[in-house]
Amino acid sequence: MRIVFLGTGGTYPSKFRNVTSIAVQMPSEVLMFDCGEGTQRQLMFSPVSFMRIGKIFISHLHADHFLGLPGLIQSMSLNGREDELRIYGPDGMEDTVRSILSLGYFKSGYKITAQDLAPGTTLEFDTYSVKCIEASHTVPSLAFSLEEASRPGKFDVGKAKRLGIPEGPLYRRLQQGKPITVEGRQIMPEEVLGSPRKGRKIVYTGDTKPSQGIVELARDADVLIHDCTLDSSHKDLAASFGHSTATEAALVAKEAGVHLLFLVHLSPRYDDGEILEREAKQVFKNSKVAEELSEHIIRYRD
Amino acid sequence: MRIVFLGTGGTYPSKFRNVTSIAVQMPSEVLMFDCGEGTQRQLMFSPVSFMRIGKIFISHLHADHFLGLPGLIQSMSLNGREDELRIYGPDGMEDTVRSILSLGYFKSGYKITAQDLAPGTTLEFDTYSVKCIEASHTVPSLAFSLEEASRPGKFDVGKAKRLGIPEGPLYRRLQQGKPITVEGRQIMPEEVLGSPRKGRKIVYTGDTKPSQGIVELARDADVLIHDCTLDSSHKDLAASFGHSTATEAALVAKEAGVHLLFLVHLSPRYDDGEILEREAKQVFKNSKVAEELSEHIIRYRD
Repeated sequence: MRIVFLGTGGTYPSKFRNVTSIAVQMPSEVLMFDCGEGTQRQLMFSPVSFMRIGKIFISHLHADHFLGLPGLIQSMSLNGREDELRIYGPDGMEDTVRSILSLGYFKSGYKITAQDLAPGTTLEFDTYSVKCIEASHTVPSLAFSLEEASRPGKFDVGKAKRLGIPEGPLYRRLQQGKPITVEGRQIMPEEVLGSPRKGRKIVYTGDTKPSQGIVELARDADVLIHDCTLDSSHKDLAASFGHSTATEAALVAKEAGVHLLFLVHLSPRYDDGEILEREAKQVFKNSKVAEELSEHIIRYRD
Repeated sequence: MRIVFLGTGGTYPSKFRNVTSIAVQMPSEVLMFDCGEGTQRQLMFSPVSFMRIGKIFISHLHADHFLGLPGLIQSMSLNGREDELRIYGPDGMEDTVRSILSLGYFKSGYKITAQDLAPGTTLEFDTYSVKCIEASHTVPSLAFSLEEASRPGKFDVGKAKRLGIPEGPLYRRLQQGKPITVEGRQIMPEEVLGSPRKGRKIVYTGDTKPSQGIVELARDADVLIHDCTLDSSHKDLAASFGHSTATEAALVAKEAGVHLLFLVHLSPRYDDGEILEREAKQVFKNSKVAEELSEHIIRYRD
């Protein structure tokens, strides 16, 4: 899994940061979280092909999180896309996509489906699931948890040898969770495999104040991508607009026991994010300001 | 008058060019012609303040010409705009602005008016007028002519002296077109002023095939900004999508007797516009590919 930060600024774009969008490259497709204006062009500066985006998850219907949809959708069509595109978001998403598709003279050459997600919904896909909960913002807003399906446990080669299993295709069958027979005796995969290993987990908060719900959602995540609109000197301002400070984001990361925290949705007032990163690190060491167009490979931790 | 090319590419953005938008800095305000996605961010890289934009003219309702409107409108509001913004465009403009304003949770803090313009309309403002005609595209599309009001004729100092007018405030009154009295005799401004001098004129075609109507509209313009989507090797393709080649744009410029031709709306297939500029120059020497974020001051030619 690879995270590409296409836009890391909030409210409106600045010279230094475009508005919010995050691509997650999965083995089979690209998932996008939020899609602010200009995202299609950010994709062109990134290694992500916009034709491989299968699903887009919108946290909420503020301009800086969804106004890139109409352009992206139309450019996909102009480039001959045929695969369905699925768009998920909070209450109002389906209506908004309908409005977007009716702007100007656009006729899509591929199928676009949109779905409003009730907070608490978990969408199950082939190799991963996406769960959403209600974030704590000024309008209905979702936080998302992307979790890979668990992988089979570790293969115990020593044990396999002791059981007299010859190296080769039979190892593979067991790793795939299938029983085998050696010298007339059936061997079950559990005999040589450890317990299933959790898949990787990425949580994206969208815009939010610090929230206990998000702490629970982010529990033990590999990566938490958290709203960090302002530094602590603007704590009250952040709260009044439904946002978090760097310290607040870091406290959530710490309490949730995540591995790595990325700070996003920086106010356009910050030319660089140094002050925010420094502040967060005082609470949670593994904090980083997400830089524009930066890429991060999320490896298995076991 | 200063032209700033905010986006010079067509169809969809590329790494090298954003989609179409042109700002014209007038003494009193900024006029914008077309507003593709990402225009508000292009403005941040330019010397143009987006708060000074008074009027936006949209050539037609294809995505690459108007999808920057919602973000720009919202950012103006977030930045505390209070002045009215007027948006003019072809049939459907008013409905489109209504749709745009209803996206998400936006509530504007200032007045926005939109008006559909019938081809042939001339809008008269304080110090300039904007005329539109029907361009030759695949959907209803307007070409615009921006003309300054004419200025008073040249002041003939020699004649003023011979008439015994003392240098100073009386010169100024005459230059302002007001009569004066010197030693009991009334002197009319016409006695010392030449005939009124034409204001500057900029014509922007939007997307179009070459058209005789545009030749007439652009007659003797200081600057013609013309669709130049493709080079001549794709002449048929250009025509089938309602666009012009570099040669065709140059022929229009030549026939209209304009002073300077800017080529815009380059297809994303061109990394740079050299081939297009070379082609146009063979027909009309004073041709230039409009470069991203380039600025051009339009001086009086007399």
